[in-house]
Amino acid sequence: MKTSRKILCAATLLAVSQVALAFDVLPAAAESPADNPGSAAKVALGQQLFFEPRLSVDGTVSCNSCHNVMASGTDNRPVSVGVAGQKGGRSAPTVWNSAFLSAQFWDGRAASLEDQAKGPILNPIEMGMPSAEEAVARINDIPGYVEQFKQVFGGSNPVTYDNIAKAIAAYERTLLTPDSAHDLHEKGDKNALSAQAKRGMALVETVGCTSCHNGTIFAGPALPVGTGFYQKFPTYENNDYVAKYDLKGDDGRYSVTKNDNDKNMWRVPTWRNVALTAPYFHNGSVATLDEAVRVMAKTQLDKDLSDDEVADIVAFLNSLTGKLPKQEMPQLPPTPGRTLTTK
Amino acid sequence: MKTSRKILCAATLLAVSQVALAFDVLPAAAESPADNPGSAAKVALGQQLFFEPRLSVDGTVSCNSCHNVMASGTDNRPVSVGVAGQKGGRSAPTVWNSAFLSAQFWDGRAASLEDQAKGPILNPIEMGMPSAEEAVARINDIPGYVEQFKQVFGGSNPVTYDNIAKAIAAYERTLLTPDSAHDLHEKGDKNALSAQAKRGMALVETVGCTSCHNGTIFAGPALPVGTGFYQKFPTYENNDYVAKYDLKGDDGRYSVTKNDNDKNMWRVPTWRNVALTAPYFHNGSVATLDEAVRVMAKTQLDKDLSDDEVADIVAFLNSLTGKLPKQEMPQLPPTPGRTLTTK
Repeated sequence: MKTSRKILCAATLLAVSQVALAFDVLPAAAESPADNPGSAAKVALGQQLFFEPRLSVDGTVSCNSCHNVMASGTDNRPVSVGVAGQKGGRSAPTVWNSAFLSAQFWDGRAASLEDQAKGPILNPIEMGMPSAEEAVARINDIPGYVEQFKQVFGGSNPVTYDNIAKAIAAYERTLLTPDSAHDLHEKGDKNALSAQAKRGMALVETVGCTSCHNGTIFAGPALPVGTGFYQKFPTYENNDYVAKYDLKGDDGRYSVTKNDNDKNMWRVPTWRNVALTAPYFHNGSVATLDEAVRVMAKTQLDKDLSDDEVADIVAFLNSLTGKLPKQEMPQLPPTPGRTLTTK
Repeated sequence: MKTSRKILCAATLLAVSQVALAFDVLPAAAESPADNPGSAAKVALGQQLFFEPRLSVDGTVSCNSCHNVMASGTDNRPVSVGVAGQKGGRSAPTVWNSAFLSAQFWDGRAASLEDQAKGPILNPIEMGMPSAEEAVARINDIPGYVEQFKQVFGGSNPVTYDNIAKAIAAYERTLLTPDSAHDLHEKGDKNALSAQAKRGMALVETVGCTSCHNGTIFAGPALPVGTGFYQKFPTYENNDYVAKYDLKGDDGRYSVTKNDNDKNMWRVPTWRNVALTAPYFHNGSVATLDEAVRVMAKTQLDKDLSDDEVADIVAFLNSLTGKLPKQEMPQLPPTPGRTLTTK
């Protein structure tokens, strides 16, 4: 079983080497799917919906609550907090540059940003809406939204759950963080990286980190939509970290497929802005980046890094912090004359 | 007791008539106190702090959670939800134009915006920080904030609880909503108001609403800072509304002063943007603006309005919805390499 997985993995990597460099510059834009082309009006609508607390059952939680685009694109908590103070089981991944992931969620259970956006709204411990119909009814009940949906999607019934997700996804495709020190370096600015970061850049290759953390956002190769790039975590269990950070307490992708091969398989997360997105791993169990580097080297590559090596790699990871794009604050259309969540 | 209060009220109104018109235009700017002059850098810092979830104990609640400046400046809930899903006892007042209130909170317990800002951060059921020192430590622990506090406030120890409040208050003083239909009308655009709104404008005077709802933001006269403009609510109890909406379930200003004269006394709230700020009253018990108008006429003036009168007054109140100013989205300085709320 393990052997066949490794062969598959090697084959994947071979394919990758033909389509992507290990050190890509972040593209200036993310491609939209054919059935959801972007437009300024759609992005503006999606931004409003991303910040819309009325998409949660009690009007307290929006997408931005856990994927804060005023900061790291995460909530920087071990696990997120949904409606009524409920805690989830996994740490919110950053929304920045998530357009470049070939599957969404830690377990890859959503193929696209469109699919992903439909999840948290209905998750009872996240935004807690009882049904897609109720979510649509909430939005349909706000004249300022109905007008925008008409303009963006047309048709006699423009406010649908699919279209809500499409607008949110169109906005998320704009959430890119260009011009990290690494990108400037790759574009030719040889002073963009410190000597330490350059040592770290060499180390992530020689140590072996980039066998998985490669591609546009260092989350693996550009695979077809829905084809997640998964790895087993932990791979090596001959260390104290597995117990200390409860790394096997969650089955990972197995929870989606119920296929034994998927036990503890996880979608490889991005390195971009990783210095901003503590705490780390699916369970948010590791608070600092240096410890996260140590844990990964040991559990994935069975290597013990020196403190200097860890510091060098952390310096390189810090060079992957991009510039958060300036955004206008959205204005949410009112629900005039009555309480937020009721008719 | 009641008589003496009425005499005082009459005296106040006499004073008012000399300093403010019943129908003011919203000023273009709010005056800053001498000890907290505004500046672009201070406002930018205050905006970040206003949106800062790290000022709550578990990193989930910011000022904006309950005073949403993407919308009505409130949370449009009957009562707000703080950390761990806890519910408060009163409905969040709008932050829009709150710079023009002479006292803050429903019970006037804060004299200024600066004083107000210090309350929710430490309130166990709102943002829940255990102490001012802890809040300061959180901010002091974020290099991007320390740098800004140095620039804005100077000195060797610029991050203080007072300065956090000053920055937030400076931002809040910019949260004005000019150019409502009413304002355009007052400035001379005779087409800005519908005929119905004009009828409503006449009615609020003849019915008597503006004996309290007058001044710049229709929340009473411009009194010295800290001198709240209070009225008893309900004044008349010969109606079903008092029980139906539990209007006496909260002692109001008495909870601050323990003075019997202050039982059920409340700071008069603004009418500006009132069409956006449902549900209504200190307990958020009334969901619609028309019902709120009926309740106020009956409980404060012992008058039964016809449906047409209510509709006219609501049309006038709708004309008080201003233009929300365009804002840039703040970028919150990171807490690199570790979890949001811990060192």
